Amino acid sequence: MERHHFETDLQALKNRLLNMGALVEERVHMAVQALMERNLEAAEAIARADEEVNALQIEIDDRCLKLLALQQPMASDLRLITSAMKINADLERIGDQAVNIAENASRMLAHPPLKPIIDLPRMAEMAERMTRDALDSFVRRDSTLAREVLARDDEVDGLKDTIFRVLLTYMMADPGTIERALALILISRNLERIADHATNIAEDVIFLVEARDVRHRHEEPAAP
Amino acid sequence: MERHHFETDLQALKNRLLNMGALVEERVHMAVQALMERNLEAAEAIARADEEVNALQIEIDDRCLKLLALQQPMASDLRLITSAMKINADLERIGDQAVNIAENASRMLAHPPLKPIIDLPRMAEMAERMTRDALDSFVRRDSTLAREVLARDDEVDGLKDTIFRVLLTYMMADPGTIERALALILISRNLERIADHATNIAEDVIFLVEARDVRHRHEEPAAP
Repeated sequence: MERHHFETDLQALKNRLLNMGALVEERVHMAVQALMERNLEAAEAIARADEEVNALQIEIDDRCLKLLALQQPMASDLRLITSAMKINADLERIGDQAVNIAENASRMLAHPPLKPIIDLPRMAEMAERMTRDALDSFVRRDSTLAREVLARDDEVDGLKDTIFRVLLTYMMADPGTIERALALILISRNLERIADHATNIAEDVIFLVEARDVRHRHEEPAAP
Repeated sequence: MERHHFETDLQALKNRLLNMGALVEERVHMAVQALMERNLEAAEAIARADEEVNALQIEIDDRCLKLLALQQPMASDLRLITSAMKINADLERIGDQAVNIAENASRMLAHPPLKPIIDLPRMAEMAERMTRDALDSFVRRDSTLAREVLARDDEVDGLKDTIFRVLLTYMMADPGTIERALALILISRNLERIADHATNIAEDVIFLVEARDVRHRHEEPAAP
């Protein structure tokens, strides 16, 4: 196989990863929307069907293995393909979290609405944007964008802690809110995991672009 | 590099993965033990230090990339090395869960003991054993053992649901238990994630050994 063919295959691989990213992001978005709009039917539908994500994961993994076997790529192409395999696994697990959110939402929707749901959509938006930007940073080999994604993980964690404290106060003040508050706490943990996966992707991108391992070596934030 | 050298390197890679597995399993075990023995100091120590896990992850990843680059392996060796990279990532995340358990335990230990903690050590034991067996199945290329690991994931989920129901009842009966019960629920979710990672490893092993993708195609249990 010639270099030209290889480039075409790499481009196809990137496109499929982008499809996968768009798909899981959409599913996370729909799961949170079902919660906000109290649409039990929509929540249950998302919880049921993730075959499309799973089929895409297997296809992408297969593309990677074929590229490794047929091309025997060196150095940066090799890192590109092994990164794609890792990113693929993270995206599939983001898809799993959409299912978990939908399941927790279904449990929640059996009860009347609970007020302090306000921060969850914000947290969801941040996690979705992290996922999108992490994947964009991969496709564009943009380590600056990847570093921005890393920096945002702390914000998500902060939001998670705030949500936890608010809901804990609710539960203690009125035990009648326990089940609903608990479902919302678990959903905030699902969103936290999505942000963690986006962070993993961003770390892979920095490793890919700069050929050095930033995992577990987050820099200090720069002075303002 | 000759075949003989390659075999030696592969063996070294497997040994390092086993070390990594033993290390994260020990850390999970210690985190749960700190909770059971109400040892705040031990819990905080585990929450603080996971450099060893992180350093080992980077080393193993590096070994894999070098093997791929220098050997340009085909077919089953190729799958072995890409599986090792995925398993390495799962093990590192099991290590992350040990940290999360220790953090949740620390929060829990600020309060007097809560009774219904009994199922958690059992759940922890199951998750640890799944991790160990999944890794053994990789090293021994034993897809039968890997399938046993897959089957055990449902048991862990069942235990998680039981723990959730029991603790929910506690919280509703006595709001004074809410914070402790919540910490225990979160720990049971941490253990669930460990079992999920072990399941991922087992799926990789079946793919490796049988060269077919069992992910998302769990078989029906056989008739008794």
